Amino acid sequence: MELARVLGRVSCSVKYPTLEGVRLLVIQPVEHDETPVGDPVVAADALQAGPGDLVSWVTGREAALTLPNTYAPVDVGIVEIVDHAWGDRSLL
Amino acid sequence: MELARVLGRVSCSVKYPTLEGVRLLVIQPVEHDETPVGDPVVAADALQAGPGDLVSWVTGREAALTLPNTYAPVDVGIVEIVDHAWGDRSLL
Amino acid sequence: MELARVLGRVSCSVKYPTLEGVRLLVIQPVEHDETPVGDPVVAADALQAGPGDLVSWVTGREAALTLPNTYAPVDVGIVEIVDHAWGDRSLL
Amino acid sequence: MELARVLGRVSCSVKYPTLEGVRLLVIQPVEHDETPVGDPVVAADALQAGPGDLVSWVTGREAALTLPNTYAPVDVGIVEIVDHAWGDRSLL
Amino acid sequence: MELARVLGRVSCSVKYPTLEGVRLLVIQPVEHDETPVGDPVVAADALQAGPGDLVSWVTGREAALTLPNTYAPVDVGIVEIVDHAWGDRSLL
Repeated sequence: MELARVLGRVSCSVKYPTLEGVRLLVIQPVEHDETPVGDPVVAADALQAGPGDLVSWVTGREAALTLPNTYAPVDVGIVEIVDHAWGDRSLL
Repeated sequence: MELARVLGRVSCSVKYPTLEGVRLLVIQPVEHDETPVGDPVVAADALQAGPGDLVSWVTGREAALTLPNTYAPVDVGIVEIVDHAWGDRSLL
Repeated sequence: MELARVLGRVSCSVKYPTLEGVRLLVIQPVEHDETPVGDPVVAADALQAGPGDLVSWVTGREAALTLPNTYAPVDVGIVEIVDHAWGDRSLL
Repeated sequence: MELARVLGRVSCSVKYPTLEGVRLLVIQPVEHDETPVGDPVVAADALQAGPGDLVSWVTGREAALTLPNTYAPVDVGIVEIVDHAWGDRSLL
Repeated sequence: MELARVLGRVSCSVKYPTLEGVRLLVIQPVEHDETPVGDPVVAADALQAGPGDLVSWVTGREAALTLPNTYAPVDVGIVEIVDHAWGDRSLL
């Protein structure tokens, strides 16, 4: 799981049928201190997150477990809206 | 899931049997503002996408879920033809 | 599996239901000589590890196997609290 | 899925039992224009590919689907011998 | 699958129960010509490999297939002790 900031949305005209009704967000992975990490990805959202929210997300088969139809071909999913994340690098 | 621009096709003489009839496209992963990200990959396509289309794609076990034979050995699949994607980096 | 040093925690207001009660830690991947590797990630913890501990962690479907509800959408999990790790680079 | 050029072979004295009889090839991932990408990997081969062939390969659980024993611990598998791949970067 | 040289071991006081008795080795991924690739990882070993051995390893769900308890939360596993690997880069 990683943290990310929600940046925007994706809209589609042609979808694989089990993706009908699934909301897709553009998210930018970030560290716990909100430094961006890597490139934005597209995530399925079942928690009604929106642009500006800090979220945590999973990849792979686990992503579809958050959707009503768990056989949907989804590999990135939002699982939490995060209040607060902290880490102390001096422990390294 | 990530976005990608379809660039071309792959044709094969010898295939694992459950891949017969599966269309394979060369796609270039891109960000929501269409900046290319990383290297092109080969994706299975069940939505009749073609060169020039903007698509979203998944990896892993989920990719084969879009095919008639879900036991096909496929790990990248196109799941949507995208109309529009946007993201606001000022939210970071 | 990789090693990591636990740096901190994540707290959330909105969670996917099967994640209720799952502790989430911010961990920094490290090598066996404790050199940091890559960026911190968020891991589910079922072993009561805490900030400062050296742990080993897994990704993907295996991560959820450590939780009471193995269908939880989790893709990074702590599986061991490590006493000691060593490696001899002169073997290369 | 990605494309790769077959470079060589791997031979082993001690194998996990379900890998008996599985041919292993050293392959170099390449792009559709045959530019090498990343480092060589070791792939299971059920199609009788050989050094010099251009192939497409999958990772993860899908790789073992090409083998007689689908429970073999294999995570890279060759699924096609490729005749031709093309892509038009001017579509970006 | 990738090749690796075994460098050392990991010992743990607290383990997820299904990991009891599973040997863990520190391995350095290498190419077929033994050039190191990336960072060392921790791998489960069911073949009695030891420091100095050249091995091949798999990631993900396949890794646990080599263990007595295939539900163990393991994502890197050693599947072969390698005698010889060769590849001819002039084929590129």
